[in-house]
Amino acid sequence: MSFEFQIESTSSRTRAGRLITPHGEIETPVFMPVGTLASVKGVPQDTLEELGVQILLGNTYHLYLRPGVETVRKLGGLHGFMSWPRAILTDSGGFQVFSLNELRKVTEEGVTFRSHLDGGSHFFSPESAMAAQIGLGADIIMAFDECTEFPADRARAKASMELTLRWAERSKKYFEKHKEEVPWSTASGFRLAGPGSAYVGTAAPGCPVERSSTAFDSVTSPVEESGLRSDGQPGTAVPTYSEQTQSLFGIVQGGMDLELRKESALRTIEIGFPGYAIGGLSVGEPRNLTREVVEATLEHLPADKPRYLMGVGTPEEIVEYSRLGIDMMDCVLPTRAARHGLLFTSEGRVSIKQARYAQDQGALDPKCGCRVCRRYSRAYLRHLYASNEVLAQVLNTIHNLSFYLDTMRRVRHSIRLGEESRFF
Amino acid sequence: MSFEFQIESTSSRTRAGRLITPHGEIETPVFMPVGTLASVKGVPQDTLEELGVQILLGNTYHLYLRPGVETVRKLGGLHGFMSWPRAILTDSGGFQVFSLNELRKVTEEGVTFRSHLDGGSHFFSPESAMAAQIGLGADIIMAFDECTEFPADRARAKASMELTLRWAERSKKYFEKHKEEVPWSTASGFRLAGPGSAYVGTAAPGCPVERSSTAFDSVTSPVEESGLRSDGQPGTAVPTYSEQTQSLFGIVQGGMDLELRKESALRTIEIGFPGYAIGGLSVGEPRNLTREVVEATLEHLPADKPRYLMGVGTPEEIVEYSRLGIDMMDCVLPTRAARHGLLFTSEGRVSIKQARYAQDQGALDPKCGCRVCRRYSRAYLRHLYASNEVLAQVLNTIHNLSFYLDTMRRVRHSIRLGEESRFF
Repeated sequence: MSFEFQIESTSSRTRAGRLITPHGEIETPVFMPVGTLASVKGVPQDTLEELGVQILLGNTYHLYLRPGVETVRKLGGLHGFMSWPRAILTDSGGFQVFSLNELRKVTEEGVTFRSHLDGGSHFFSPESAMAAQIGLGADIIMAFDECTEFPADRARAKASMELTLRWAERSKKYFEKHKEEVPWSTASGFRLAGPGSAYVGTAAPGCPVERSSTAFDSVTSPVEESGLRSDGQPGTAVPTYSEQTQSLFGIVQGGMDLELRKESALRTIEIGFPGYAIGGLSVGEPRNLTREVVEATLEHLPADKPRYLMGVGTPEEIVEYSRLGIDMMDCVLPTRAARHGLLFTSEGRVSIKQARYAQDQGALDPKCGCRVCRRYSRAYLRHLYASNEVLAQVLNTIHNLSFYLDTMRRVRHSIRLGEESRFF
Repeated sequence: MSFEFQIESTSSRTRAGRLITPHGEIETPVFMPVGTLASVKGVPQDTLEELGVQILLGNTYHLYLRPGVETVRKLGGLHGFMSWPRAILTDSGGFQVFSLNELRKVTEEGVTFRSHLDGGSHFFSPESAMAAQIGLGADIIMAFDECTEFPADRARAKASMELTLRWAERSKKYFEKHKEEVPWSTASGFRLAGPGSAYVGTAAPGCPVERSSTAFDSVTSPVEESGLRSDGQPGTAVPTYSEQTQSLFGIVQGGMDLELRKESALRTIEIGFPGYAIGGLSVGEPRNLTREVVEATLEHLPADKPRYLMGVGTPEEIVEYSRLGIDMMDCVLPTRAARHGLLFTSEGRVSIKQARYAQDQGALDPKCGCRVCRRYSRAYLRHLYASNEVLAQVLNTIHNLSFYLDTMRRVRHSIRLGEESRFF
């Protein structure tokens, strides 16, 4: 079983459950930190584990350009490459192609775009985007879509939606044919040596799989513990894999038109995916419109499949969308804001650069138990930021992620206790 | 007892021992990582503890400019400000005033210099440099000296040495009169509220003192464990301090003239300090000259006092100087080189930016047990560096520090086993 979604508690429209992936379980609703280039900027992987991160998001567009899919694939996929034994989701590259490329050219076949790094010309089609995501080897991958710009008139939104639907079919077709080529699958006899190959099986959260000091040794993993063999020879370890593959999610588009959103949802469901994302939002539209589209779209998505709202949001928004029945979210906000000194706390936003914190001996957030709030004062964090010290980014990011993950923990707890209304 | 130096093993000219300071013991010979602005760039304090760092170096010049001595003093001195319960040494600011200021003006009274940040005019005298270092509250502080430039003729080197000697007397005089003003001393009835005040006593290495989540709570510290009271009230904790003060070290100058070095050593000893530094080296002179001056100066320093060689060196040099009988060293090399992708390993230097590592699955240093080498491949580290990811700096710095600290651990182990010749 490569993928399973279990709903364990519901309360009004919201629900708590768990996603079961080849690299561990994920409690939902979940917020996924963004690790664009195979790194959550400034935070070591063991700290992410300690924070309780169960799934990370990687950006196909960026990884395709640097270090390149083939490099990542050879090193065991993203899990092996970045030494992250838990679950990963990659986007399809569609959003970045649209948001980072003024000069893109869209045809039925795909998108020609220029690298934001060196201006070089590249081409993504549904097939090549799938091939890239299979090579990167995330647990959950996304169909290649066109992210409709905002504003867009009805004709444009409909044409864009139709293109996304055709690309969804092509994405699925390619994926079904090639899904066994994922770096950690053995169904096709695919084999890899090296540290990457150790990151297989359903590594339990809280049970980090680390490389031994001899780098190539096979490590103790749930696969070994369950009695399956692993020969443990440096450089030659060939663990026995269960026959697991990635899961491909579909993406609903349709601009801000509720009728189109309904049509996109129904026709995407008809193609059939183990999970559905709502794309094309957070593209500049007003927040109440985002919410309206989300609510309208959710009505048409099957209750027994995970629902992923792409690219949101603030701490308030991730709570709100959880309440509406969203199961998965991602956003650069906590990590990007941290780099600009904007910190989320139980007492509201703190702009740590302000002089008022220069001698503030208090913890950043007295109610937060993260390693930053336990140890450092606002004065110290302000000094690091004002002095442009790299540690500012490291500590700020750890705190903001902790705040987001704690928020989701409380949301899940409330749902399970059936006290939804109290938390919200 | 504020300071003690115990020599436990000797082998030829080298010796292993321990420094006992108000903030813990330090095994010698020791390499001290540099935390210029109250941060070892990119590395959280708990990681430094995990690496086994027993003493950090802070730069008075930088901290004086930002965040300012008064801010640090109010927040409990550097220990409280940066939440570092182990030992700290500050330099006198003399070296930076000379190396970062083309326009400095030296008089008998002191040095007028311009801030490298905003060009503002400032003045350091032996007295004000002592006041700054007392306010910063490191365990070991340094006399204010003039770092003689290289090259310098004999007359210039002698004049500079004489000035340093007069300043050493003034430094000691001011220190003796004001040493009880250190933020963590109670001898003068000096009191501080807030988290900083928790960092007192002889916090043992390996026993990090962390703030509780309510930020102001008094923490469990050796002071409490030994039965002394701490009332534990938020914001009002007034621990009972033992009557400890900082220790002021003298600095030997004299340029590259061995006679002057001898004279400087003997006359500095005459003034009398609990430890002696060799300054004015690593200022552009050839390496064999550095070594010659170190050897010649060491002959005249008392064997029962710690000997600190300022501003060295490479991994090879810190081993070599340990062999000559140096007990303490500091250098920005491991941390600065890390930021430029230059990594020290048991197999030699690795410039991780090189394309040859792009698909290298091996650990950075197969013989290193640090958290970087245990977990990540050279390919991943190369990717982080090539992509300008902040995590590159974090991980590279952790590894280089680990390599330096491991090197010193092996040196101490060899001395204790009496196998000096084997290690060296």
